[in-house]
Amino acid sequence: MPGNSFGECFKITNWGESHGKAIGVVVDGCPSLLSLCEEDIQKELNRRAPGQSEVTTARKESDTVEILSGLFQGKTTGAPISLIIFNKDFKNEDYQDLATTFRPSHADFTYEKKYSIRDPFGGGRSSARLTAGHVAAGAIARKILAEKAGVEMVAYTKKIKDVVATVDVERLTREKVDTNVIRCPDQYAAEKMTALIKEAKEQGDSLGGIIECVVRNVPLGLGEPLFDKIEADLAKAMLSINATKGFEIGSGFAGTEQYGSEHNDPFVVRDGKIVTETNNSGGVQGGITNGMPIIFRVAFKPTSTIQKKQKTVTLEGKEIEVEAQGRHDPCVVPRAVPIVEAMAAVVLCDHYLRNKMLR
Amino acid sequence: MPGNSFGECFKITNWGESHGKAIGVVVDGCPSLLSLCEEDIQKELNRRAPGQSEVTTARKESDTVEILSGLFQGKTTGAPISLIIFNKDFKNEDYQDLATTFRPSHADFTYEKKYSIRDPFGGGRSSARLTAGHVAAGAIARKILAEKAGVEMVAYTKKIKDVVATVDVERLTREKVDTNVIRCPDQYAAEKMTALIKEAKEQGDSLGGIIECVVRNVPLGLGEPLFDKIEADLAKAMLSINATKGFEIGSGFAGTEQYGSEHNDPFVVRDGKIVTETNNSGGVQGGITNGMPIIFRVAFKPTSTIQKKQKTVTLEGKEIEVEAQGRHDPCVVPRAVPIVEAMAAVVLCDHYLRNKMLR
Amino acid sequence: MPGNSFGECFKITNWGESHGKAIGVVVDGCPSLLSLCEEDIQKELNRRAPGQSEVTTARKESDTVEILSGLFQGKTTGAPISLIIFNKDFKNEDYQDLATTFRPSHADFTYEKKYSIRDPFGGGRSSARLTAGHVAAGAIARKILAEKAGVEMVAYTKKIKDVVATVDVERLTREKVDTNVIRCPDQYAAEKMTALIKEAKEQGDSLGGIIECVVRNVPLGLGEPLFDKIEADLAKAMLSINATKGFEIGSGFAGTEQYGSEHNDPFVVRDGKIVTETNNSGGVQGGITNGMPIIFRVAFKPTSTIQKKQKTVTLEGKEIEVEAQGRHDPCVVPRAVPIVEAMAAVVLCDHYLRNKMLR
Amino acid sequence: MPGNSFGECFKITNWGESHGKAIGVVVDGCPSLLSLCEEDIQKELNRRAPGQSEVTTARKESDTVEILSGLFQGKTTGAPISLIIFNKDFKNEDYQDLATTFRPSHADFTYEKKYSIRDPFGGGRSSARLTAGHVAAGAIARKILAEKAGVEMVAYTKKIKDVVATVDVERLTREKVDTNVIRCPDQYAAEKMTALIKEAKEQGDSLGGIIECVVRNVPLGLGEPLFDKIEADLAKAMLSINATKGFEIGSGFAGTEQYGSEHNDPFVVRDGKIVTETNNSGGVQGGITNGMPIIFRVAFKPTSTIQKKQKTVTLEGKEIEVEAQGRHDPCVVPRAVPIVEAMAAVVLCDHYLRNKMLR
Repeated sequence: MPGNSFGECFKITNWGESHGKAIGVVVDGCPSLLSLCEEDIQKELNRRAPGQSEVTTARKESDTVEILSGLFQGKTTGAPISLIIFNKDFKNEDYQDLATTFRPSHADFTYEKKYSIRDPFGGGRSSARLTAGHVAAGAIARKILAEKAGVEMVAYTKKIKDVVATVDVERLTREKVDTNVIRCPDQYAAEKMTALIKEAKEQGDSLGGIIECVVRNVPLGLGEPLFDKIEADLAKAMLSINATKGFEIGSGFAGTEQYGSEHNDPFVVRDGKIVTETNNSGGVQGGITNGMPIIFRVAFKPTSTIQKKQKTVTLEGKEIEVEAQGRHDPCVVPRAVPIVEAMAAVVLCDHYLRNKMLR
Repeated sequence: MPGNSFGECFKITNWGESHGKAIGVVVDGCPSLLSLCEEDIQKELNRRAPGQSEVTTARKESDTVEILSGLFQGKTTGAPISLIIFNKDFKNEDYQDLATTFRPSHADFTYEKKYSIRDPFGGGRSSARLTAGHVAAGAIARKILAEKAGVEMVAYTKKIKDVVATVDVERLTREKVDTNVIRCPDQYAAEKMTALIKEAKEQGDSLGGIIECVVRNVPLGLGEPLFDKIEADLAKAMLSINATKGFEIGSGFAGTEQYGSEHNDPFVVRDGKIVTETNNSGGVQGGITNGMPIIFRVAFKPTSTIQKKQKTVTLEGKEIEVEAQGRHDPCVVPRAVPIVEAMAAVVLCDHYLRNKMLR
Repeated sequence: MPGNSFGECFKITNWGESHGKAIGVVVDGCPSLLSLCEEDIQKELNRRAPGQSEVTTARKESDTVEILSGLFQGKTTGAPISLIIFNKDFKNEDYQDLATTFRPSHADFTYEKKYSIRDPFGGGRSSARLTAGHVAAGAIARKILAEKAGVEMVAYTKKIKDVVATVDVERLTREKVDTNVIRCPDQYAAEKMTALIKEAKEQGDSLGGIIECVVRNVPLGLGEPLFDKIEADLAKAMLSINATKGFEIGSGFAGTEQYGSEHNDPFVVRDGKIVTETNNSGGVQGGITNGMPIIFRVAFKPTSTIQKKQKTVTLEGKEIEVEAQGRHDPCVVPRAVPIVEAMAAVVLCDHYLRNKMLR
Repeated sequence: MPGNSFGECFKITNWGESHGKAIGVVVDGCPSLLSLCEEDIQKELNRRAPGQSEVTTARKESDTVEILSGLFQGKTTGAPISLIIFNKDFKNEDYQDLATTFRPSHADFTYEKKYSIRDPFGGGRSSARLTAGHVAAGAIARKILAEKAGVEMVAYTKKIKDVVATVDVERLTREKVDTNVIRCPDQYAAEKMTALIKEAKEQGDSLGGIIECVVRNVPLGLGEPLFDKIEADLAKAMLSINATKGFEIGSGFAGTEQYGSEHNDPFVVRDGKIVTETNNSGGVQGGITNGMPIIFRVAFKPTSTIQKKQKTVTLEGKEIEVEAQGRHDPCVVPRAVPIVEAMAAVVLCDHYLRNKMLR
């Protein structure tokens, strides 16, 4: 209930602060007999790691994960899996003023008011650094889904500022996504996006964008009625990622402009299987997966930390101007691609396990 | 866990089927000593009721609520409040064929596949009729928030198809919203929306749209870090409403096109109080309310039930054509306005109570 | 979280007050396709009903259950099952003084202090009348367990005051239990118990006792490690029944006097199956069922309501004497037998469904 | 839901295996601004540590706790507190045979059958070693309760085999409890208990016993009605501790032999405060604390690990004889005293925070 856990059957509990001794996540509910090693998790973490390119932060966090529990001879035992990432590289001095100043559009002010105390180093508990735990937990969820049901999920950068990529999601692969630092398989758009981000970075400014995620081979029947609909839990998971401002599934906001007769997805039989001819529903009807690919999008605001002078107030309520000094991402979207995938995996794995109760 | 409950501290459990004996909701966690009567709930239900105008369904469901428990001499006792609405008016014959046919973009197919059985009358458990329970529970949540913290929430029809209303949310009131059947305070837009819906209705077609909701006098500090962020729980609540395809808060999807320097909300001191000059954050920073109004939008797809021939398949997998016969809403948006408000009230009341644990 | 729900996968939400319009329970998580009718539930409720004999209260509550949702053509659909019992027979005048007086060892005082208001009629929310909801929900749980896994559970009155029954639990059946009003299959002990209760009743006094419950054909592997052990959840369920003061499983408190070498249950192979030679463990090892019968006992204090003068204080803190007037059970144990069975069924059904997640 | 978390508002998540790299617990829900340091936790852990005396195991586990998160400058921030204990001293060879043999009355068999895999070293996940996490979490709960409400809790060894201590719980202090290795403030009984344990140890056998716990200065009104009664949650917490077989509160099982007129606790006014003259209720009425001391007892079976030959079967179902080799506690009761206190603190702290929601 205090908000640091997610999931019912596949349950993750995230702890740590940006610049603390370590950060970590406890994964509870992983079925037994899954082969698992640190490398399975590390390779996902590496996709989120900072310092990968000129469009992300220059900070180097090696983010090396250790598995502390839940395995016996390389297989899961059904016991909780405790994952830990020790912090190595941080420079406290970069953030010193921030203990007494509320950075605009950061969580400094709200944490201070809610708790009357906060760890200011690197944003403390409110830092996006904590999403490393999401990615680590998601690596396990992804492995369960892949091995037990052949589920595949791929996210990519759909849009940066006003540059929109044109992508055939049916044939999208992670390999295509990872061909550039923007994580956008439309090379032409990717180049324009890169240019925009570099330009923003030079100006000390930041950009936002949209990530689209497609999930294929989704088992039919995942999702619970009324409140724990698949799209409801995906929406919650996505809006819990730092810097997100919106979520849409299938036709989303644009679908509001269609007629029902255009928007409805006709059922047809293909190869003896009931499928829908179109997929405006985004793979979900009545909150329950219909076997078609799940397609959803997540909006990320421009990064709050910028190197420009901004108005703000201090802890004492004095109006001042601030200018961030540290090394920050001019645009979080490329690094958020694995986070979106990871949280989608957590949601789907949770519902995959929940659905077994019915049988 | 089976998905029919929502909330932790203010917890609602919804039961019933569209055409069953009754539908209902159990509200658990209402603080004691709140004055409450059936009329408090009935007036909210009346806003959701069908048959209100030519732009909604012609079905008449009187939706009379009874309070069965939780009160003593007109005040809540802290015990669960059981609310029931007996069903009176339904015509089973309207839906007869539907037991063996999967209506396009309805939940017929997914329920059938998940449960191997479903109540087909009126959509059974997947019917939007069940949101009457949300509205009833929301009426209690709204009363708690209003009396304990002066919270006000108003939603309205922002957009129908491609007609967008221009509304000053700061001065928005429920009275203004209810001046027309569309629930759109921009009269000029409202007329165009009405015309569009009538036209769609005549063609046996349907429309979607967007609802915007503003919450004022929000206590500072609501929301829990990491997963149970206010926007995450609002997103979940909204995506759990029938026919919704998207959620955005503050700047939302449009905000992805701004620079950080434009998007950040500078803190300033006004009347001795720290506020933000702009509100692109939509009242939430780091998942926690900052005291500014919460503003969010919800996308509704065009109603799935239309009076046009559509391709679909039967239970046996035979491809056929269907055409709905019953009385249905050509556009659910006007009637969804109180549902959006209600679920927002449930989320905020839940977090209002959760936040007390800290003190 | 407000305490009126129990279970994770098979989840019951109980509402109502002793003398309100109705009491009820929402059962969420029942798998689909279970045949169910009101008679299945009614027959269990009838065992709990008052007015059955001279050893129980003379009040007649007919306790007729109605199923309001969750069924289609006699089968469960996976949707929540709402059960309601309308109240018919109550006499408010019997309890009038009690609104301002705290009856000794009742919940009047604690409810008043916790909520600053309470429904005093018949004990309101704290009345054992609410356990009718447990029995109703338990009837469904019992049916699931019986049909899916052949699980049988039988409880009986083991002890009243200092009279202890001698019973062979291996051959215990409900038929044997129901041969007398005490629900004790040891006829000799049953007669002595009956005499004791009648005597106490004549003196306006009350008695307590112990119920023992045996569960056979328990699937191997139910129970979760560390906190949600089967015995932990059974203990919680039992201590949540009104008037209970203790729980023990297997050897229980008496087992503390044995040596480990006597207490350990040796594993042996019988008919190709691994079983234990003795069952001091009570069917559970490390919190997980081992396939042997679960055996546990529950202690019930003597009923708090007695027809003797007792010291107490009023709402205003004045010391006075009270004497109950209404019709009450001189001993709740015989009527609690089906309640113990019902809550055991709820716990086991919950864990039966939970255990499916692993596969 | 997978069973490794406990609590709603004050929530602990326990991970690790007896002989893994480390064990740990994540404490979520600790209010901010509590002063906390490792020594606060270490001193509680030291009471549970093995190797303290001749009546416990000779194994030395130094059990040094580290706080990894949730603190800023010595104060809690409201963020999750991650506690870790790295394992140092273990001898794998002691347990080698056990991978293929089911030790009688251990969890080997049930874990193997539930998960089809288990970590056999030191009992893996089923080891009582994991209760170090309970004690660590309990140290924080105890501090919150003490500082915010002056709550005191003291447990002691009430009984070993058939030797019962005579103790005045009203004047019981931890100092008195810790005057001997048995943790029994009745010195005469303590000596007899010590002799019994030594004797059992010499014979390679083991003993059980009973722990009694008293909680004073309990705030009035803790506990939720119907299912989350204080005694229900205490029972669950106690039965989740390894080797426990029973729980009773107040008069407990013995109270079943009293008349209601003896058992009822008359309310009286003392120093202007409403209290009960007797305390057969054990501090709880209707599931809610009445302000009197909470008194409960927990039954521990004799330790399963003994140095005597016992019948059992192997993984392949072959009947064999085993004899434990390692260093084990001949009686866990003295070391379980701090575990009982810790879990009681966790339950009460959870309810203390939950109760705030009402205001």
